[in-house]
Amino acid sequence: MKSTKFVLTEKEMPTSWYNVLADLPEPLPPLLHPGTQEPTILPPPLFPAALNEQEFSQQRYIEIPEEVQDIYKMYRPTHLHRAYRLEKALGTPAKIFYKYEGTSAAGSHKLNTAVAQAYYNKKEGVKRLTTETGAGQWGSALALGCRLFDLECQVYMVKVSYYQKPYRRILMETWGANIVPSPSPDTNIGRTILSQNSDSPGSLGIAISEAVEDAFNRDDTKYSLGSVLNHVLLHQTIVGQEAKKQMERADAYPDIIVGCIGGGSNFAGVFLPFIPDKLKGKKIRIIAVEPEACPSVTRGPYTWDYGDVAGMAPIVKMYTLGHTFIPPKIHAGGLRYHGMAPIICHLHRLGLVEAKAVHQVPVFKSAVEFARAEGIVPAPEPAHAIKVVFDEALACKESGESKTILLALSGHGHFDLQAYDEYLTGKLEDYEYPKEMVEEALSHLPKVMAEMK
Amino acid sequence: MKSTKFVLTEKEMPTSWYNVLADLPEPLPPLLHPGTQEPTILPPPLFPAALNEQEFSQQRYIEIPEEVQDIYKMYRPTHLHRAYRLEKALGTPAKIFYKYEGTSAAGSHKLNTAVAQAYYNKKEGVKRLTTETGAGQWGSALALGCRLFDLECQVYMVKVSYYQKPYRRILMETWGANIVPSPSPDTNIGRTILSQNSDSPGSLGIAISEAVEDAFNRDDTKYSLGSVLNHVLLHQTIVGQEAKKQMERADAYPDIIVGCIGGGSNFAGVFLPFIPDKLKGKKIRIIAVEPEACPSVTRGPYTWDYGDVAGMAPIVKMYTLGHTFIPPKIHAGGLRYHGMAPIICHLHRLGLVEAKAVHQVPVFKSAVEFARAEGIVPAPEPAHAIKVVFDEALACKESGESKTILLALSGHGHFDLQAYDEYLTGKLEDYEYPKEMVEEALSHLPKVMAEMK
Repeated sequence: MKSTKFVLTEKEMPTSWYNVLADLPEPLPPLLHPGTQEPTILPPPLFPAALNEQEFSQQRYIEIPEEVQDIYKMYRPTHLHRAYRLEKALGTPAKIFYKYEGTSAAGSHKLNTAVAQAYYNKKEGVKRLTTETGAGQWGSALALGCRLFDLECQVYMVKVSYYQKPYRRILMETWGANIVPSPSPDTNIGRTILSQNSDSPGSLGIAISEAVEDAFNRDDTKYSLGSVLNHVLLHQTIVGQEAKKQMERADAYPDIIVGCIGGGSNFAGVFLPFIPDKLKGKKIRIIAVEPEACPSVTRGPYTWDYGDVAGMAPIVKMYTLGHTFIPPKIHAGGLRYHGMAPIICHLHRLGLVEAKAVHQVPVFKSAVEFARAEGIVPAPEPAHAIKVVFDEALACKESGESKTILLALSGHGHFDLQAYDEYLTGKLEDYEYPKEMVEEALSHLPKVMAEMK
Repeated sequence: MKSTKFVLTEKEMPTSWYNVLADLPEPLPPLLHPGTQEPTILPPPLFPAALNEQEFSQQRYIEIPEEVQDIYKMYRPTHLHRAYRLEKALGTPAKIFYKYEGTSAAGSHKLNTAVAQAYYNKKEGVKRLTTETGAGQWGSALALGCRLFDLECQVYMVKVSYYQKPYRRILMETWGANIVPSPSPDTNIGRTILSQNSDSPGSLGIAISEAVEDAFNRDDTKYSLGSVLNHVLLHQTIVGQEAKKQMERADAYPDIIVGCIGGGSNFAGVFLPFIPDKLKGKKIRIIAVEPEACPSVTRGPYTWDYGDVAGMAPIVKMYTLGHTFIPPKIHAGGLRYHGMAPIICHLHRLGLVEAKAVHQVPVFKSAVEFARAEGIVPAPEPAHAIKVVFDEALACKESGESKTILLALSGHGHFDLQAYDEYLTGKLEDYEYPKEMVEEALSHLPKVMAEMK
């Protein structure tokens, strides 16, 4: 009988992360210090030495510590699924596979790096981690990661989400994290904003600033970021390495790999382990999908910009819509970042990764069809990738080609059902590309831009 | 390195359900017709012939149809986990294993029978299934089961839950089911109740009556039940058969099996495949856990009672608190049934299964400790079983014995986080055994009781 899932045992789980920096045809541009504009490392008061080393390592494979592997084994390897029912529903000759990360307790791929970051911080004597969260997916993962290594976890949660998404907050609290609505009276930046507007709904930018300030001010505390940086993408490569083994077991190889990009870590985790094959001449299309409302790679310039809104983080070379840009309130909260992981931007510049932007209404239409065929209700973020998988599968139907498509399905939508309700009742709306707001934000790029061109 | 999970491939998935009726030392008492009080089958207008046959079959193994196996493979075999971190947290020499059913798209074991029931109905030409749901776990599973076999699904959802648990409703709607708040104006019983009280919050009893009336009135429609009946327990035995294989792989055998019981299908699914060993003299304690607020097996008489509130369903011999008993509103909605699966009651009478009742505050205390050790946030129902696993593991700590405990972890609590919030903020309360309400309800047992003693 045909196989629906490709299952790996714990013994088959990869024991190293794959570091693409070792294989890049051209080196990645440096990080610049936000003050001096000189090449810099990650701020040591915020990040442990081991993660700083990984951020710039040129070693092709980096061993996953045994303690991290032990935690990974609580939910990994995850399954690779063949979407037979979806193929039939679409009437396509394409073969569709999906690698699903929603079965971990945190419900998404984010746990892969949360566990690793908690481990390295613990090892260097850190007692407490801070972070920010909007919709709550990253905050949940770090809350669990910290719990598993007995670290305190302080999450600054955008105030409007704190009140609108109580389930995400409760999940983090169940794992023992301390959740504060941001802006909070606990930091200088929070107090300043509250003194200007005591009803401020908060923003991810403010929450980042609070989490960073908190970590700077306490010796026992460091800061943790859930995407964008090289070491975060590195930790996610366990996903793609598993998928590669599982595709082999399915006697298949992807012609097309599709994933969504917000900060870029989920998709990079899936496709990076295929990059060496592509560099050796293997024909694989790697399609990164972003929202029309926040289309950094498809519409933004490739330039130097701050990683955060307040301009406290290093300056990085990336596709950006401007660090002061606040994207429209699409449901895919994880895709509302102004920039993009430098590694993904660099690979796009090198012609190894392509990008597409899609609107949320057709995204949810595809997500509902996916759920009705495959059961799984996807999170709004990977639903963006599903839309493009549908497009490619229907193109195969047109052309008669039987291409093999691999979808990065990063997590479930159990805490995002309000968005499904809006779609099902016809209330969901699209947001056009906010051209003028982006132009305004791009006028605030750091001045280093001119010098570095 | 030690194994944390015991993984089966699709090829290792059991291909038959195990039917304990073939092995019972004494036969199960018959079902009685609610009108004639004569032994009866399940009402044919409500149930397809194949399920009626399974209800009374004496065949030890019943083959799982290939179409059902194909759907099972979308999420099965599920993993058996060794709870190393929990053992360490409890400081117990006990070995704790748990079989986790929360990774299916529906989030619980309920999908195992929903898929089977949808298949047999479809095969006999049924176009539409009706059911009732309270908290929504069973409704979700049937919504997905119906979608996978292209059946319409009509769910009568207790009105108070319909408005208080919108996520469960949206999940069912995402899979294409039609959800109606009950009491509804669509049935005679619904209209009658609404004419008496247009603000009626509804009850599971009313919702059952509406679903049954709907199915009786339409030739293309049958009714579907998510627990209690023999065929439902049968479909769940795939869980225990997998667990048995996985325990073998772990080189272990359970001294104690613990699960929660509401209608009884989840726990029966896990322990029934171990009954033949126990009948052959193997020493296994099988502990069924129920809430103190609805303790049918620990406090109810073993007698004849209706399966439903309206007295339209067959009369069955079981432990019951009276079919008119409405239990206090504990968070474990799935454990609020007045009776219990006849198979479980019979095995309890025969001394093969024991029962314990627990309060919800210590239940949630255990559930939070479990989540902090193992990551998974359990549904309130299996959290009851977790409490007793803790008790047994701590007894081992006391005695120094290294017993092997198998926990039936039937699903996740993603849609039950409000209950966790109440626990974490000290607002959760216990309900004492409602003795007087039970005594009142027991005065309404059907009169057959006397004759059949």
